[in-house]
Amino acid sequence: MRISELSAKSGVAIPTIKYYLREGLLHQGQQTAATRAEYDESHLRRLRLIRAMLEVGRLPVASIKKVIAAVEDESLPVHLMLGTAHYALSPAVEPEPGEDWQIARDQVDRLIADLGWAIDPRAPTRDELAQTLVKMRQLGLPIDLTPYVEAARKLVSEVEMDKIPFDGPRDAAVEALVLGTVLYGKAFDALRRMAQESESAGRLSP
Amino acid sequence: MRISELSAKSGVAIPTIKYYLREGLLHQGQQTAATRAEYDESHLRRLRLIRAMLEVGRLPVASIKKVIAAVEDESLPVHLMLGTAHYALSPAVEPEPGEDWQIARDQVDRLIADLGWAIDPRAPTRDELAQTLVKMRQLGLPIDLTPYVEAARKLVSEVEMDKIPFDGPRDAAVEALVLGTVLYGKAFDALRRMAQESESAGRLSP
Repeated sequence: MRISELSAKSGVAIPTIKYYLREGLLHQGQQTAATRAEYDESHLRRLRLIRAMLEVGRLPVASIKKVIAAVEDESLPVHLMLGTAHYALSPAVEPEPGEDWQIARDQVDRLIADLGWAIDPRAPTRDELAQTLVKMRQLGLPIDLTPYVEAARKLVSEVEMDKIPFDGPRDAAVEALVLGTVLYGKAFDALRRMAQESESAGRLSP
Repeated sequence: MRISELSAKSGVAIPTIKYYLREGLLHQGQQTAATRAEYDESHLRRLRLIRAMLEVGRLPVASIKKVIAAVEDESLPVHLMLGTAHYALSPAVEPEPGEDWQIARDQVDRLIADLGWAIDPRAPTRDELAQTLVKMRQLGLPIDLTPYVEAARKLVSEVEMDKIPFDGPRDAAVEALVLGTVLYGKAFDALRRMAQESESAGRLSP
């Protein structure tokens, strides 16, 4: 298809498509004349992925470039490709110097080991969880994560992983991961607060 | 206790305490001389609550004032007092004009009715969930919230509500709600992404 059709089908404006081409986010089409190129389904899939990372993942272009490099590196196993996208979605956390941090971080590492979870030692989620545990300890909250671990494990293993099309094009798998992680995460967050309101009403209303 | 002791025990600097007193966030102490006042446990509890709303809830001072007005209005039932804090924690969502919004919002209202949940018609979580559903629909994601509803209901009814001290001082109940909602929400979010990484490793690693 021509660039005009690619634009119509993807809903992405032509100047934006040209910008993605220049930035290397979108691979070049098949050149058919000096000023004409042909695009195909792979370009549509890539535009969907870029849109997911920009609009839903709210990732900066530099992070998007890293994820796309992982998508394009066919020698990179799918698990590591997905990990690149996954880590890009994690909020940046700076370890705080001090004993509180070390205690919390050790607690996270022990939890992961006890669960037998396969988490990379450099996974940003380790620091992210540690930061929350530091705050909980400082504010005197009980730190019992068991019910949250159980809920997360159940959701992920019984529902979420089955939604990732591992066997299809690499772009589509990453897109599903980004959309699912962010949007179902938001949905759960709102539903949890709804359940809190409803339960509180049930227990306290006259 | 004197203001210096209140500061030492709460970890809040004296000028900050004076600012809270001027702003009406902290109730005045018992005046014992022209320049001297006595503070008690209720001031310590209030400072903990303010800290929770500022540092963990990241609420603006205007929202904190509203929550504290609800805490101080003893005629307001506990459920509505907690609701004030809860709603203050919700991100502000602007309904988008158009058919997509109306479909999503109807879907949310029907879901709540089907579940029999007691959610105020003006609860901001309704718009918040609708906004996520609009995005899901636009991006072609399947909208099956059942497993998320189940996970939220289980966590809230079996674990979270039991952590709110409904019978104690009003400040303490609101503090527990704010801390629990925000911090366990963050912890769950990190644990869910950890579970995704581990499950993906298990399915895809050689």
